[in-house]
Order: sequence, then C-alpha cells, then structure tokens
Amino acid sequence: MSTIQDVARHAGVSISTVSNVLNGRADRMRHETLTRVQTAIRALEFTPNRAARQLKTGQTSMLGLLVPSIANPMYGFIAREIETSAQERYGYRVVLGNTYRNKEKETGFFDDLLAQGVRGVIVISSLVDEQHFESAVERGLVMVSYDRRATPDASSGIDHVSVDNFEAARMATLHLIGRGHRRLAFATASGLTMSRSEKIRGFFAAAHDAGLGASASVVDRRTLSEYGDSEMADVGRALAGDIARMPQRPTGIVAVNDMLAFGLMAGFRDAGLEVPRDVSVIGIDGLFLSSLVTPALSTVQLPVARMARTMVDRVIGRLDDPAIPTGEFLFQPEMVERASVGPADPTSPGRAAPESPKPGIT
Amino acid sequence: MSTIQDVARHAGVSISTVSNVLNGRADRMRHETLTRVQTAIRALEFTPNRAARQLKTGQTSMLGLLVPSIANPMYGFIAREIETSAQERYGYRVVLGNTYRNKEKETGFFDDLLAQGVRGVIVISSLVDEQHFESAVERGLVMVSYDRRATPDASSGIDHVSVDNFEAARMATLHLIGRGHRRLAFATASGLTMSRSEKIRGFFAAAHDAGLGASASVVDRRTLSEYGDSEMADVGRALAGDIARMPQRPTGIVAVNDMLAFGLMAGFRDAGLEVPRDVSVIGIDGLFLSSLVTPALSTVQLPVARMARTMVDRVIGRLDDPAIPTGEFLFQPEMVERASVGPADPTSPGRAAPESPKPGIT
Repeated sequence: MSTIQDVARHAGVSISTVSNVLNGRADRMRHETLTRVQTAIRALEFTPNRAARQLKTGQTSMLGLLVPSIANPMYGFIAREIETSAQERYGYRVVLGNTYRNKEKETGFFDDLLAQGVRGVIVISSLVDEQHFESAVERGLVMVSYDRRATPDASSGIDHVSVDNFEAARMATLHLIGRGHRRLAFATASGLTMSRSEKIRGFFAAAHDAGLGASASVVDRRTLSEYGDSEMADVGRALAGDIARMPQRPTGIVAVNDMLAFGLMAGFRDAGLEVPRDVSVIGIDGLFLSSLVTPALSTVQLPVARMARTMVDRVIGRLDDPAIPTGEFLFQPEMVERASVGPADPTSPGRAAPESPKPGIT
Repeated sequence: MSTIQDVARHAGVSISTVSNVLNGRADRMRHETLTRVQTAIRALEFTPNRAARQLKTGQTSMLGLLVPSIANPMYGFIAREIETSAQERYGYRVVLGNTYRNKEKETGFFDDLLAQGVRGVIVISSLVDEQHFESAVERGLVMVSYDRRATPDASSGIDHVSVDNFEAARMATLHLIGRGHRRLAFATASGLTMSRSEKIRGFFAAAHDAGLGASASVVDRRTLSEYGDSEMADVGRALAGDIARMPQRPTGIVAVNDMLAFGLMAGFRDAGLEVPRDVSVIGIDGLFLSSLVTPALSTVQLPVARMARTMVDRVIGRLDDPAIPTGEFLFQPEMVERASVGPADPTSPGRAAPESPKPGIT
C-alpha cells in the first residue's frame, strides 16, 4: 500500500505539498504542481489514510452493530437492511458483533468500538437490564436500541426503535379467535426479554377481551445459556411435544417469533399432528422463509426495512449533532394470512367438547 | 470520551508522562507518578485510542468480511462462525459488507477497508472473474477467498478455502441413484459461479458412471441482477413449476444448495406434487433449517465451523507474517439422510414407463 511519502517522491514534491492537495489547500499552488501530485496519487493508487483524518475528527465512518447471533435469519435480515442503508445512504461501514445476549460480551464489544474510534452503535439485544448500555453511552457511544421500549418517565441517552410488540401479539391472537379458536396458547422461550413480556401482555389482552382468558396459557421452555442459531427453533420443537401431550390441548398457538413457529411445526409433525388440521400456528416477524415452509406460515409482519432505515438515520444524525434529543420510535406490524391457521373444529377427534365462552380472569 | 489530555490534567502530570505509561515506558518513572496516572486512567475510564497506535503499525485489529447478502441463512451461518472465531481466538472484530455479487460493490468495499486501515479480508463471492480480488491484493489486502478453487497452475496472492463442490454434488447424486432414481436433474440458478460449475460436473460424473447420462439434465432459471435474500428460494420455487410440467419428469432432483431446495419443495407443494412420494429432493449445505422444513431435507453437509476457523487462521496468520505462501484448502462434505428422498417408483401414476439403463453420452 503506497504512503504519502511514496506520492511525494513520485511527484518530486514535499510531503507537505501532497498533504495540502489532500486537504483541499491547493488554491495558491501552481497548476503544474497540482497536476503532478494528482497524477502520482492515481498512478500509485494512493488512498488517503482515513486513520490520520480520524485522529483529527475523533470519528471513523463506521457503525457498530450488536446482534445476539447473525446466524438467526431474523437478525441476518435486519443486519442486511441496516448495512445496506448505512452504506448506500451515508457511506458508512458496519462492524458486526455476535454477543449471544451475554452482558459481558456486549460490554466487550462496546470497549472495542470505543478503542477503535467507532462512536455509533445499533444494539439488538432485548436484555431486560439496560444499565451497561447507558454506561457505554456515558463513555461516548451514540446508541440506538432495537426491539425494546423506552422505560416510561426515565430519561435515556439511547434512541429506542421497535415494533409495537403488544399489538403484534394481540393481532396474532385475534386472528386465531376470528377462526373460532377458543383454547389458546402463547409459545415462547422462558428467559424474559422486554419484547417477550410485551407480546405475552398483548396475547392475554386479546384473550381476555374475547372472554377466553381462563383457557389461555403460556407454554415455555428454557433455552441454553448461550443464544445460538437454532435455539428458538429447538425450543419450538420441544414445546410442540409438550403441547401435544396436554390433556386439554390448545388448538391455536401464537409463537413468539417465526423461528419458534418453524420449530413448533416440525415438532407437531414429529408428534403426528397435522398443521392446520389438528392445530393452528401463527408466527411473528415475517421472515421470507415463512412463505417457504409447509404449510406456509401465517405471521405478523414487521416493517424491517423501515425500522432499519430509522435506526441508521438516528445514529448517524446524532453522531453529526449530539444535541438532537433521544426518542422512542414505534412501528406498527401487519397481519399476513397464509396456510398455517385453519378453522377450529371442536368436534374432531382428540379435542374436548365445545365450551361456551366464559368471562376472563382479569 | 476522555482524552490523554484529560488524564494528564487529572493526574497532574505532562501528556508525555501519560504517553510513557501507555506505551510501557514507565521503568524509570517514580512509583507514585505511575500510580497517579493509572488511577486517573481508571477514574476517567480512559481507553487508549487505538487509532493513534494504528498510525504507527498501519494495522487495526479488524477483518473485513464480504458476503453476497447476510440475509441468506447460509452466509449468516458462516459469518457467525467467522466473527466468533476471529473474536474469541484473536480479539479481532469484523467489518461486514453485503455486496450482492456485484463487482463494483466488492471493489468499493476493498477501497473502504484500505482507507480505514483494515488489511485482512475474507471474501465470499464466487464470481467467476477474480481479477478485482488480485488487484486489491496488489494494493495491500491480505485475502482469503471462500467457495472457489484456485486456478490450476496460476500463482495467486489469495488463499482459497472451499468444500469439494464436485464431490458434494456427486455424493448427492449417488444418494438418489442408490434409491433407484434413474431420471435425474440438477436444479440451479443460471448465472455460473465457480462452485456451481463444479457441482454440475460432479452431478454428471455420477450420472454417467451409473449409465444415466442420457436422462440427466440441468434445469435452471436466471436470477435477478441483484442478489437478494430470498432469490435462491424464488428460483427453486419457479423451477419446481418448470419440472412439474416436463413430459418426462425427473424423479430425483439435486438442488445446488439448501435454499434452492426449500424453494423447490414449496413449488412442488404449489404444483400439487408431494415430496418424496412424487419427487425426491436433496440439498447441499446443511443449514439447521434443513431439519425443520417438512419433509426434513436430506442434504450434503459442509463443515462450516472448520472452514471458518481455517479462513480466520489464514488471514490473521498472513497479516502477521506476509512471507507465508498462499494455498488451497479443500474440505470434504458429509451426507445427511433425512426425509426428502424416497425410493423411485416408476410405476406410480404421472410417471413414464420404466426404462432400462442406457450408456451415458460421455
């Protein structure tokens, strides 16, 4: 890689003359000298070292992106949108960190970003405890947090961008109720994140409003400590076995996300149950994979591209102008009907007798 | 973010004293002064600016990773392995670029890496023309290329790490032949990459050796110009319709990769064909998703974690010692039997009469 010294030698000028050209201070330079320097820069394919400029400005044109695991297709999807948006609209590059929802790994990633001079970061974590985020902000990071709401009435140095998770789960549950399902379950991994808690609230709100609160339940299983690529699907697969063995089996299942729904469908297949004939499943996310599985998955679609653009705009906007106040940006999801939800049929074998609606437990 | 000036002021010493502590030149310093500087560094949570050190060494502890699209689960899978390996074993961070198999975007990514002082890069591209890679190497990048073989007898500044794609496709084809399939097809996107060409050769080699060359064919469709997340699956879905309409329909299909196989299975479902009763499908890659789809996909599994480790070792090894010669690293895949391949049954309705094996066209 050629250096500024190489360019000066090639052009037969001093290093400070090259530096003047690079920094746009060529107005009092002889035209012939300027041309010679420019020719040398092209001939040597010299790239001005951004590290040197960074020392002056204290900033690189890079963003950090923290994800639990990029092997999870939902995070791959959103990371692609974030990287493409940062690159095409701002010329920023993205430094990626897989942190497996581990607080120490997340903190280590922030340390490395600061040490590298990267000051903007988008975090996808959903850990309930956000203290290490606020602490990283105090140390100089400009941060946007995805998929969790701001804490009400608390001031925060962090922008919060998320879908309305309460509404997403409520929408999914209403879809099942609309097809006649009266025994409902919400299937999730048991470690609580902010977004999971909101989805559970939305699920119960819909069930209670329909008078089905008493027959609505949460089924969950613990994930392993490290958040891997197939963990959500593995939990779903195990939960399907649990559900298949329930004496009063629910007929309509809301999965906390599409990956868990894929696992549920594979697990029901293993248990000899057919979706949607024996049990209906609905997801949340809207991965492109949801249209490929058999049966195609009905799901609540998140506006991923729009959320990604907002996150990029916010973090780069506040890097440029730290005086911009932080805020909360809430996006609305949309129902996508496919083939995994069928009508409830309480008279088919293996199901309990129909029950009349009863008041919820609220 | 605190600066070296802040630390000097807090400790009541000169900037050069702080600099001496940071650079390990404290042996002739009074113990009390050293302690005061160290206390100030901790109190201000000062992170020595790696950009300043980078100016001296010309290197950051970052690697570039170029992928067609991180939203494709195969690239998410391998990116996770690469990032985790670089981070946990070497303390390196990864700068990600989605370049959609576009030569200009790939070159732009190399430019940005060089400008940022990042000198190591792993490229996942498979474009047939590798000239812009060699050119980036001449400009100072240390490069490892994934999923393409080295050009025979040509010297290269690039390490090549890949699975044996010829063998992977041969293995998949032999599996179909072993279950009695005699009308075979290889399903792929039509833009040729190095790895696709090798797989097609492996497919025909197996067919010819079994005397089935005359009834083996490649079915393909063009992808859109930009390589998106669902493109492979979309191609597979469209190809399933093409195959379903063929008068002498193949009964055993080798998909160029798992994503295309998922699309094929969805497309066969749309066309009213059941896998594996009416048609058998086998993939190549071994995504964790392949065990989740219905029916679970038989596939040829790549050793992704081992390949990722090798790529990281090679690029960091050659950053440390540029004298290490480049090489080619070829990995062997493994057959994973699941449920998407059944026995051929030439007497079932919708299929042509059985035919006796005939010599291949070799």
